[in-house]
Amino acid sequence: MVRLEKDWKHPLHHAILFRLNSEQRSILKWVSGQPPRQQPDQLVVEEPLEIQVETRPISVTMRTPGHDEELAAGFLLTEGLISRRDQIAKITPFPRNPTGNAINLFLSPDVSIDFAKLTRHVFASSSCGLCGAATIDAVHKTFATVEGNSASIAAKEVLALPRKLRKEQNAFHLTGGLHAAGLFSLRGDPIVIREDVGRHNAVDKVLGHALFNNLLPLDSTVLVVSGRASFEIMQKALAGKIPIIIAVSAPSSLAVDFAEKSGQTLVAFTRDDRFNVYSHPQRVTFD
Amino acid sequence: MVRLEKDWKHPLHHAILFRLNSEQRSILKWVSGQPPRQQPDQLVVEEPLEIQVETRPISVTMRTPGHDEELAAGFLLTEGLISRRDQIAKITPFPRNPTGNAINLFLSPDVSIDFAKLTRHVFASSSCGLCGAATIDAVHKTFATVEGNSASIAAKEVLALPRKLRKEQNAFHLTGGLHAAGLFSLRGDPIVIREDVGRHNAVDKVLGHALFNNLLPLDSTVLVVSGRASFEIMQKALAGKIPIIIAVSAPSSLAVDFAEKSGQTLVAFTRDDRFNVYSHPQRVTFD
Repeated sequence: MVRLEKDWKHPLHHAILFRLNSEQRSILKWVSGQPPRQQPDQLVVEEPLEIQVETRPISVTMRTPGHDEELAAGFLLTEGLISRRDQIAKITPFPRNPTGNAINLFLSPDVSIDFAKLTRHVFASSSCGLCGAATIDAVHKTFATVEGNSASIAAKEVLALPRKLRKEQNAFHLTGGLHAAGLFSLRGDPIVIREDVGRHNAVDKVLGHALFNNLLPLDSTVLVVSGRASFEIMQKALAGKIPIIIAVSAPSSLAVDFAEKSGQTLVAFTRDDRFNVYSHPQRVTFD
Repeated sequence: MVRLEKDWKHPLHHAILFRLNSEQRSILKWVSGQPPRQQPDQLVVEEPLEIQVETRPISVTMRTPGHDEELAAGFLLTEGLISRRDQIAKITPFPRNPTGNAINLFLSPDVSIDFAKLTRHVFASSSCGLCGAATIDAVHKTFATVEGNSASIAAKEVLALPRKLRKEQNAFHLTGGLHAAGLFSLRGDPIVIREDVGRHNAVDKVLGHALFNNLLPLDSTVLVVSGRASFEIMQKALAGKIPIIIAVSAPSSLAVDFAEKSGQTLVAFTRDDRFNVYSHPQRVTFD
């Protein structure tokens, strides 16, 4: 539906535009009372996009590839930097990033951007540390993987944990609007539960609690999150050396890739009688 | 459960720590077949927190107040800036922000922070433009309110829109992991639907599409989002002058406050036969 200007018809650009936003992976699916089985699963694609204005990086956002020009132009519009279409002269992919995870906007000569207006999500660094294939490796330079961690959890306990998390939540039943993150022992005892309107904040609060109470490293614990598993959640769990992460809802492709390379066991779609293991299933024991 | 150091026992600090994370508002509730009625509703609290290290702002995050020290310390930990509790010398509220929406971390003399390590969410400005009571006013300096906009939508059409959004979604049925945002005419005709792993990105894509197709201002349209309504979603809608926003799930307190002051009609918890109107209900018509 987007009518692209001639300048925007770069071949790479189109490859991004028409890319599918789901990817297939092999998972271990378990339904209570049946043996676990390997099967294919569709994952929503999550990848970073660096938005540059006149080659200056102004934002990195984790997004689903596709309609990247709309995303970049819409970001400038909603940040109040531009207000009309003719203020954008050209949109091109960033040539030094062959994966299509950076995009460059060039403005009309009469538009002067007030970069100080950018209120949030401003990227201070001069290079895209989180873009493309470098994303996961960059994190591993700061945080060691949990490969070799010998923690394990019983499949029945995995099923019980989201229920325990909900039981401990204070505000959800009143408002229906909070994300929860809970840290549990491998036997399922709650250590700390935190809630927040932002899923990443709930996890930061849990890790801050662990820091204050000298519980680090969290190498014999399980992190349970009430919603989806994103790249950011997995990175934060790794910062605390948590080997097992359980999500109630869907994981993203980058969360699964990150878990795989970080040695983390990622369980998601954890419902009353079933769950899927997306990486390192050896830590889940089935009777 | 957090054991606070003596230095952290600032009276203001405690006020934050023990603040409730839900707030009561008056809403207009409609159940199909019944007359709409005014009733109280609990909202999840969303407010900005500016995290400062040695008085330098490093992050602004929209969060639910409470356990702010844990959030700030956890953020430093998960960004790889600190790894041990003894690296934090003191945590204090920021004295120039009496609302408790800024927090200051002072580090041990032996800790040197590499600010270039911060990968995301870095706040470039030197003052907290989005903190406290200034949050909403700051946005209104860039984007005019939609007070006086005379658009209206029938209650039955409101109920139909989330279904139409789901029908248009491509990836959700495969992965269960995508947020959707859709722009519709006041009669419920779809204009554009976009999906993304990030709810704000889906809205940016919709607005970018509108910009590319010369559809701005969107003063006779409705924005429908598949999940929750946050402050950020309402700000982005205002950037496009969209007067009516419909969310399937819960709104936050700041989203409601922003909608109220911006002249936006915010409908949320839109289910098969019911919805709640949180602000400016005059744009919803009941037979």
